[in-house]
Order: sequence, then C-alpha cells, then structure tokens
Amino acid sequence: KGSQHSGGPLTLPPGFTSEVYDEFIAAARQILGEQNVTVITDVAQLSLEHYTDPSKVHDMHNVVEKTYFVASAVLCPRDVKDVQDIMKLCNQFEMPVWPFSIGRNTGYGGAAPRVPGSVALDLGKNMNKILEVNVEGAFALVEPGVTFFDLHEYLVKNNLRDQLWIDVPDIGGGSIIGNAVERGVGYTPYGDHWMMHCGMEVVLPSGELIRTGMGALPDPSRPHPDGLRPDQVPGNRAWQLFNYGFGPYNDGIFSQSNLGIVTKMGIWLMPNPGGYQAYLITLPRDEDLHTALDIIRPLRLQMVLQNVPTLRHILLDAAVSGNKKSYTQKDEPLDDEELDAIAKKLKLGRWNFYGAVYGPEPVRKVLWSVIKEAFSKIEGAQFILPEETKDHPVLQTRSGTLQGIPSLDELAWVNWLPNGAHLFFSPIAKITGDDGMLQYSMTKKRCKEAGVDFIGTFTIGMREMHHIVCIVFDRYNKEKRDRAHWLIRTLIQDAAEHGWGEYRTHLALMDQIADTYSFNDNAQRKLNETMKNALDPKGILAPGKNGVWPSNYDREAWRIPGPDSL
Amino acid sequence: KGSQHSGGPLTLPPGFTSEVYDEFIAAARQILGEQNVTVITDVAQLSLEHYTDPSKVHDMHNVVEKTYFVASAVLCPRDVKDVQDIMKLCNQFEMPVWPFSIGRNTGYGGAAPRVPGSVALDLGKNMNKILEVNVEGAFALVEPGVTFFDLHEYLVKNNLRDQLWIDVPDIGGGSIIGNAVERGVGYTPYGDHWMMHCGMEVVLPSGELIRTGMGALPDPSRPHPDGLRPDQVPGNRAWQLFNYGFGPYNDGIFSQSNLGIVTKMGIWLMPNPGGYQAYLITLPRDEDLHTALDIIRPLRLQMVLQNVPTLRHILLDAAVSGNKKSYTQKDEPLDDEELDAIAKKLKLGRWNFYGAVYGPEPVRKVLWSVIKEAFSKIEGAQFILPEETKDHPVLQTRSGTLQGIPSLDELAWVNWLPNGAHLFFSPIAKITGDDGMLQYSMTKKRCKEAGVDFIGTFTIGMREMHHIVCIVFDRYNKEKRDRAHWLIRTLIQDAAEHGWGEYRTHLALMDQIADTYSFNDNAQRKLNETMKNALDPKGILAPGKNGVWPSNYDREAWRIPGPDSL
Ligand SMILES: Cc1cc2nc3c(=O)[nH]c(=O)nc-3n(C[C@H](O)[C@H](O)[C@H](O)COP(=O)(O)OP(=O)(O)OC[C@H]3O[C@@H](n4cnc5c(N)ncnc54)[C@H](O)[C@@H]3O)c2cc1C
Ligand SMILES: Cc1cc2nc3c(=O)[nH]c(=O)nc-3n(C[C@H](O)[C@H](O)[C@H](O)COP(=O)(O)OP(=O)(O)OC[C@H]3O[C@@H](n4cnc5c(N)ncnc54)[C@H](O)[C@@H]3O)c2cc1C
Repeated sequence: KGSQHSGGPLTLPPGFTSEVYDEFIAAARQILGEQNVTVITDVAQLSLEHYTDPSKVHDMHNVVEKTYFVASAVLCPRDVKDVQDIMKLCNQFEMPVWPFSIGRNTGYGGAAPRVPGSVALDLGKNMNKILEVNVEGAFALVEPGVTFFDLHEYLVKNNLRDQLWIDVPDIGGGSIIGNAVERGVGYTPYGDHWMMHCGMEVVLPSGELIRTGMGALPDPSRPHPDGLRPDQVPGNRAWQLFNYGFGPYNDGIFSQSNLGIVTKMGIWLMPNPGGYQAYLITLPRDEDLHTALDIIRPLRLQMVLQNVPTLRHILLDAAVSGNKKSYTQKDEPLDDEELDAIAKKLKLGRWNFYGAVYGPEPVRKVLWSVIKEAFSKIEGAQFILPEETKDHPVLQTRSGTLQGIPSLDELAWVNWLPNGAHLFFSPIAKITGDDGMLQYSMTKKRCKEAGVDFIGTFTIGMREMHHIVCIVFDRYNKEKRDRAHWLIRTLIQDAAEHGWGEYRTHLALMDQIADTYSFNDNAQRKLNETMKNALDPKGILAPGKNGVWPSNYDREAWRIPGPDSL
Repeated sequence: KGSQHSGGPLTLPPGFTSEVYDEFIAAARQILGEQNVTVITDVAQLSLEHYTDPSKVHDMHNVVEKTYFVASAVLCPRDVKDVQDIMKLCNQFEMPVWPFSIGRNTGYGGAAPRVPGSVALDLGKNMNKILEVNVEGAFALVEPGVTFFDLHEYLVKNNLRDQLWIDVPDIGGGSIIGNAVERGVGYTPYGDHWMMHCGMEVVLPSGELIRTGMGALPDPSRPHPDGLRPDQVPGNRAWQLFNYGFGPYNDGIFSQSNLGIVTKMGIWLMPNPGGYQAYLITLPRDEDLHTALDIIRPLRLQMVLQNVPTLRHILLDAAVSGNKKSYTQKDEPLDDEELDAIAKKLKLGRWNFYGAVYGPEPVRKVLWSVIKEAFSKIEGAQFILPEETKDHPVLQTRSGTLQGIPSLDELAWVNWLPNGAHLFFSPIAKITGDDGMLQYSMTKKRCKEAGVDFIGTFTIGMREMHHIVCIVFDRYNKEKRDRAHWLIRTLIQDAAEHGWGEYRTHLALMDQIADTYSFNDNAQRKLNETMKNALDPKGILAPGKNGVWPSNYDREAWRIPGPDSL
C-alpha cells in the first residue's frame, strides 16, 4: 500500500497534476482513514470481472477499451458525515467524484465513472445497514449497501416473509438504492422501483444534507439523545409512508442524475398477497409476438395482469440453460430453423410469457381463467405451471422472481459467448403488436448485420413496455466489442428515427441518447444543466452522467467516438 | 374599459410606480389583445363569491382581509406562445405573475396570488382543449382549462365511458392540471392525481418551453406540417405512456412549486373495471375511529380496499344535507349529544366509511365479504348499499364520485354557516388508530376553543391518510374569520409538535408550514430556493408559493401575521 501512496494513479482526473492529486489523496486519507482509500496505480487492479465479486474501479463489461472508463481511486465513506466531508474536499480540489452503491450496474457501465480518473465513491462497502423494516407500514429504510439478497434474507431470518415480500430484478446482487435511482425494474406488482421508493436522504454536491418528503419534518414523537448529527436523527414516522411532503417534490431530480448522493432511502414492501401462482405461456411462432402484445395490453391495464410480466425470446431462455456452444458450432447468428430446433428441445415457444396471479384462490381463479381464455386465441399456445413439471428451469427461477425471491440464475445468459460480457439496449414502446413487431424486427435486422444473436425480452409496465435487448459479446475480442458498440449506436439512431427512446444506458452512450431527447433544441437538457450549475458550481458530482455536463466541462470534447470501423 | 386603461390598479405590485405599471399593461395588451387584459381598478371587481362563477382576482374564501391577496390585473393567454411572451415581458419588468388554471382552489386561496398586486395568469380561459383521449393507452392529454366535468362529459358524449373513467375530487369544477400540480386527491383507484399524471409541457420562468419524460423525444412517426411552433408539434406517442424518460425525472419540481407553468399534461384514465359497487359502513361511536383505522390499514395495503375510501365525521355528512340552522339554533360547537341526535336523524354513524369494490362480480364478492367481516368487529356497524335505500344522499353522491362521476353536491357543506367560507387544514398521518385518534382529539379540542364545529374526513391513501379538516366560517364576520385563522395557525403548530405536517395549504399559511419542514436548518427549502434563483433569477413566477422565495424578496417582510387577538 505504501507504493500506492507514492505512486500516481493509472489515470489522473482531468486537469490534475500528480502533486495536486497526491494532496487530495492525503486529505482523503485524513478523513476516511488509510484503509478506506485505495489508489489505482496498476492495471492489475482492474482484474475483477465477475458479478459475484464486482470491480469497483472499471467497467467489467467494457465495450470500449477496458482502461478508458476507470477511477483513479476508490473512497469508502464510513458514514454520512464522511460523504459530506468528501464532497467538501472534492469541491476544494474540483475533483470529479462518481458515487455508486454496489457497482453491479453491468450492461450500463458497472461501477465505472463517466469521466476517466474520477474518484469512485463506494457507498455500499461500509454503509450497508437495514435501518428499519416496518411491518405495519410495509416498508424498509435502507443504506446504499443493502442488496436485494440482504433485504430478502432479513425478512426470512426474522420470519417476516409471510407478511412482506420485496421486489427484485432478474438478479439479486444489486443494491436497492442503486437500482431504484437508476429507475430499474422488477417483476412483482411492485416492479417499478422508482415509483415504490418513499423518502430519501441526500447529500447535495455542496455537502449539504437534505431529507425529502415528510423526512424534512422533525418528529418530536421519536425522541433521541442530544448531540446527534442530522443524519443520525430518527426520521419522521411518515417519511416512508407519504412521498410528496410539502412544496416542490424533489425526489425525481435525484434519479438518473448527478445532483445528489442518496444515503438513505425508503422502499415500499408488498404485503403477502395471500396466495400466488406463477405460470408460463409458450407461443410457438415469431409473429405471435404481435398477437400476444395486443392481448397483453388490455389485461395489464385492467390489472388482470397484476405484476410486470415478461415476454421473452427463446434465445434468452436458451442462454440461461446453456451457452451457444452447447447448441451449435456456428459463429453466426442462429436462423429461424435453428431457433425452432432449440425451442423444440427446450419444450418452449419462440416467445415465452412469464406471469403470475396474486391473491386468495377465488381471485386467482378468476384472473387465471381470463388470462387463459385471452391467450387461447394464439394457436398452439401452451399453459404451464411450475408445479406441474421440472422441464423448464427458467419457469422455476421466475416463479421465485415473481414473488420477490432473489437469485443469480439469469447471470448464465451472459455466458452465451466465451468471455461473455453484455450491453443493454433498452427502448420504451407502446404495448401494441405493431410497435412491438416493428421494434423487434428493426433490432433483429441490425443484430444480424452485426453478427450478433438477438437475445431479448419485453417487460410489461402499466402502459408501456421496456424492450430489453441483451447484446452479448466476447470482451477479449476487440472486433466483437466494436461490433457490439456499432450495434447499439446504430440501434439508438434507428430507434430515434421511429420516435423511440431508451430508458437508461451505458456510460458510452449517454451523450448520444441525451442528444435524441431533443425537443425544442434540447430544452430539457438545458434545464438540467442550469440546475446542475446552480447546485454543483464546481461540477464535481458525476459530470456527464446521462448527458448532463456542468459548465466547466466541454460536452463535445468528452464525447465517446463510435468504433473505428466495421 | 377606457377608465381601466388610465386608472391604476387597486394594488400595485411591489416596487412598481403607476407609470411603469401602465407601461407593462400596454405591452401586455400588445401581446394578448385588449380583451385578454383586465386591470383591477375597483373593489367592485372583487365581488364574485361563488364556486360556480369563481373570482380570478381574489380569494373568495378570504381569511385575512379580502383586499389583501389580490391581483392587479388578469391576463388571459390564448396559447402557449402568449404564455412565453408574457413571461419574457414579466422578466423585463420584474413583474410577479401568478398562474392558475381555473381558480377553484378554494380553501387554499382560490385564484389569488401570494404577493399582492401580482398579475394573474388565467390559463384556463382560452386554453381549454381536450387534446387527446386515447382509449388504447387509457389516457388523456389536456390543456389547463379542462375541468373534471369537461373530461367526463367528453367521455359520455363520445360513448367512451363504458371503456374509460376519470378520477374526480369531491367536486368537479376544478381543472385537471391545477388539481394534479397541487397534488390533490380523488377517490377511485386512481385517486393520487400526481401519481397518475404522465408527461407535461412546461413554460419555464425564462419563457423557455420544455416537454418532460418521453415528450422530450421528437416522434417522426407523427408527421406534421412544417413551420409549427414547438408547442404545436404532436407529442411523442409514448409521452403519456411512460413518465420518466431519460435522465433526471423533472416533473416533481413543477408540483406545488413556482418553477414553471404547465401548459399541457397527460393524465391516466382508469379502464372500466367491469363491475362496481359502492357502499357505506356506519360506525356508531366517536371512538370507533380507532378500531376502524386499524381495520382499514391492512385492507388498504392488501388492495382489498382498492380505491381511496373516506372515513367521514357525522357533521360533514350532516352539513351536506342542511346548514347548521336546520339542526340547531345554537351558535357554539355541537356537543356529543347533539351529534348523536343528528346521526340518529340521518340514520348515520358518528363516523361513516364510504368505499367501493371494483371488478367482475366474483372478485367483488370476495372483496366485499372480507371487508364486511373485518368491519363487523365494530359493534353496531351497519352496511348499506346505495341501491337499497334512498335515505342517504351522501351515499348517492359518493356512489358517483367513487366511479369518477363529477358533481357539485358536496359544495353544500360550505354553507354550514351563513356567508360560509372555508379553509382546509390537511395534515398527513399514519393509518393507525392511535395516530388518528390523537390527531382527531387534538383538532377537536382546538376547534372547540375557537368556537368552531369539527367537520372533517380521513381520506385513505396507500400507506397514509390525509386528514382533511374543513374549517367553515362566516366570511363577513371579522371575528369569526380571525378565529378560523387562529385555529389553523394553532393546529399547524400543534401538529408540528407531534411530528405531523400538512400536504398543501392556503396562501396565508405557506410560510408557517414551510418553516415546520425544518430538517437540518431548512435544508430542503434552501435547495428549492437555489433552484428558484437559478431558473428564475428575476423572481417573477409566483414568488413565495409554498414558502419558496426568490432572492429579490425578503421572506420575513412578507410573512402574514396571525390575527390581532382572540
Ligand atoms: C443478468 C442480468 C440481469 C439483470 N436484470 C435486471 C433487471 O431485471 N432489472 C434491472 O433494473 N436491472 C437488471 N440488471 C442490471 C443491473 O444488474 C441492476 O440494475 C443492478 O441493480 C444495478 O447495479 P447496482 O444496484 O449495483 O447499482 P450501482 O452500480 O451501485 O449504481 C448504479 C448507478 O446508480 C447511481 N447510484 C447508485 N447509488 C447511488 C447513490 N447512493 N447515490 C447517487 N447515485 C447512485 C450511480 O450513477 C451508479 O453508477 C441485470 C443485469 C444482469 C447482468
Ligand atoms: C366542497 C369542496 C370539496 C373539495 N374536495 C376536494 C377534493 O376532494 N380533493 C382535492 O384535491 N381538492 C378538493 N377541494 C379543493 C379544490 O376545489 C380542488 O383541489 C380544485 O381542483 C383546485 O382548484 P383548481 O383545479 O381550479 O386549481 P387552480 O386554482 O387553477 O390552481 C391551483 C393552484 O395550482 C397552481 N397551478 C394551477 N394551474 C397551474 C398551471 N397550469 N401551471 C402551474 N401552476 C398551476 C397555482 O399555484 C394555482 O394557484 C374541494 C373544495 C371544496 C370547496
């Protein structure tokens, strides 16, 4: 560690000399202690590559050079005061700082910062307490390091799972806060994590601490010892019960943003619905996507489909069961015949719809009969319950996921190719057969051009769907990486030409996508940048995140170029 | 009108001379045309007092002097460009401008501005189109002047009501936009209007125009003639389907705020649930409130109670059926015996719970049986369906309200007293018997001290309740007004001492309530004021709204003093 202290970082932040950088690090060590500051001096420190033990420094699923999006050091605050002190220090040095909770944001950049050489703020390492699980109010209050696994296990250990369920993404290792602030999705009725958050504590770029909603109101009914710091004072007892508070409702500007660091957040938990049944409906033909979406829309609107169900392409399921080699020796994208063969082998359809019904038996019965009748319009549709067969491993997993039981099973599809890495292309669309088919065929065509298998799923929200396209590539093969990069850039462009936009993206694509949200000469981005400059005049907090650049950065100079050629 | 042109306004905006004011008005007339600019030169122009034809100039339910919260002129933009041009003009003159949609915000200040002499921006007069009702996506896109009545009638006229329902507040004359931005509530499953809005178009204080969420993304699939202004261009087809878009989610900062003027907004409509049944459960004793709330909480969390039901005090129902004189000659607050007598006469309980079940018959049956069983724990509880009796006028009204049919019936309670005006005290609480009883008894005690009848209701949200206390007073009687004013100020203070805060308030109380949201030295208000100064450097848009003052105003100097004495 001594060598780190004297040796400079692999990548200095913009405008820094080694001397000034060392000064900053020395001051950071004063604040956090030696053990909570690690400078990245060596490429060997960029070696972590697995979800289970993720890198806190670089993008493990790098689509540009692995050494580009890297932090110069990792700082691990022990508490909120540390976060505040570090923000003050960063202001003093004009040091770019990139906060994350866990760093499992794979497919979107992981823990890596947008601006190379930023210091990474690893919030989750030391700040990982479940502060409260409230059964009566059905909510939890958590710190950044609390993962879906952690909260679920807490419920199990405390015999609370018969009362409360959490909602989980496909895999459970991410943080509840990180996922919610990125507006990630899960699959129970509580699948819209941003909608289901309630109350936040946020450190502003200045280091100032706020609590949003009812959290701004002190609660004398919760007595506490004198002399506590504001962040230590128990929150208002309605903080996790009512989102809006009084006056402007600020929470949204702290999502997908660089305006604050979330140090506590409330999340609503789902009361055990009193009954549950997962199911799979297999749809044999590619074009069944069209009919299925037009069946799904009214059912979802009516809440006959009570949760966030998914309509998954055969290859997504296939990739969970085995890698490409296990199905074929071919390198090119699979064709229709091969997909049919795989579907047959796995006893699945070209598209596979995973849902669940919730509630006491009579309610479930009514709902399930309506769902069955509606899907029966599709010739060859099959209805499968997880209890009836062990044939379908994905159904077994999803039967857990749709009741909020976290797992890692779905990680398998990332290994579809050797040295598998992935990139998510995630456009929003209307839930209609026409929109879905058009978006799917556009995507499939470009995948083919890029020599990539289409692996994707439609996750069905209230009135729109997130089309999640999983672009898998070999991270050690520059040409394949470039193809993936070309593919996503082309898809973003294609989508914009159809009026489709993405809900979230990888560091490398943030500017391109922000450009597409261009109404009235990018007026919304100008608004965001005005707020950014007012709240963060030194431009230190996550500059460039989601295309929002403070005035001391030149957006054009920081653009990520597309791949050299194809 | 000629005299208005030369005569100065009753109340000049702060810092204005008549000459400069006249210059402003002349320029405003240039922009909007003579007929869309009315200067308030005469107290006679403050004579409108009825909800059905509301004042656009002053608070019809004034709790301080009627001539205090008054606009100097009313400007009626014809379109978005007019709004933008007026904002530019206001910036030029540093003219405070107070936008409203309809001005039926009674109990909270109506159309009146926080800063006397502001120009009122009457958005609803000319901008009142239903721009789209989309059945497939179950949403509407509306302009500020569209009322709940308008949208409901549109559905009826176009034979769409068998497919789509709206959600309405107790009375239907308000605007959909005005109510949603104030985070008002209705009573169907879509009762949280802010949650159910989707996509906005906003004129910023600078005059700049943005569209939020997916609205920021141009949609080439919706072709339009060349040369349209940005506000005329058709929105993205996912604008009303997906709220968040990409990057910071800005909508919240335009609610209860002074950062923008909403010119278009999407609102989700509820698909006809395929069946509906309203009901009333009467609860005989005052203390049944305690048991009832503890019964309600888990049912609401479980969505057995699918909508926003209300637990109404007997006097609220009584006041809908007749004024105080029709029950008693007494001036003082009614006592328990008198309340019991009224309840008996009206065949109601001391508390009356109005709900509904939604869905096909088998679903409704299950839900209703669970609800009935749960409430049967309360001795003497009676279960009444609107089809079974014509005895209960409020039940008949609410049977409409809970399925989104607007009415004016509830206006009646405002006339409990002669020259009836009202003021809402609306604190948030946990849904528990303990919290509810404590809040109720605190309120009742203060009402008694003020010589005011307690008239109130608990509206049950997902995890909290809005306790809506309707303080009715004689607006022509200064002493009674002062008592109402004393009462609400005292209640706000009492509530804060219990850790309770209000969700919305009257102009006169905004600063007091903002003060109570004081976590970490009012850090959240400082955040709001930093944003305010950045987005509105001249401080022209609704200065002081919800306690947020731009830097060119001195908060202390603008405080509204409490009533002289009691
Ligand atoms: C196989 C597979 C399946 C997946 N399925 C899903 C899915 O179903 N749904 C889904 O949403 N995602 C999914 N993901 C993507 C991702 O793994 C999750 O979204 C994950 O929760 C994000 O990582 P994290 O929680 O560790 O966030 P982090 O990496 O900790 O944070 C992500 C970003 O959020 C911001 N942030 C985080 N914490 C804070 C904070 N405290 N304050 C301010 N900003 C903060 C930062 O910008 C940070 O870079 C999947 C990934 C894989 C590999
Ligand atoms: C008997 C009775 C019962 C009531 N019941 C309910 C109820 O059940 N639920 C409920 O919520 N309210 C209720 N109210 C209160 C009130 O009548 C409604 O909330 C009503 O909808 C608000 O008035 P409005 O829509 O005309 O809003 P406006 O007066 O038009 O607007 C209110 C405020 O919102 C802001 N605003 C409005 N439009 C815009 C815009 N376009 N851009 C920016 N800011 C804007 C302004 O600050 C404005 O002052 C009730 C009132 C009475 C008298």
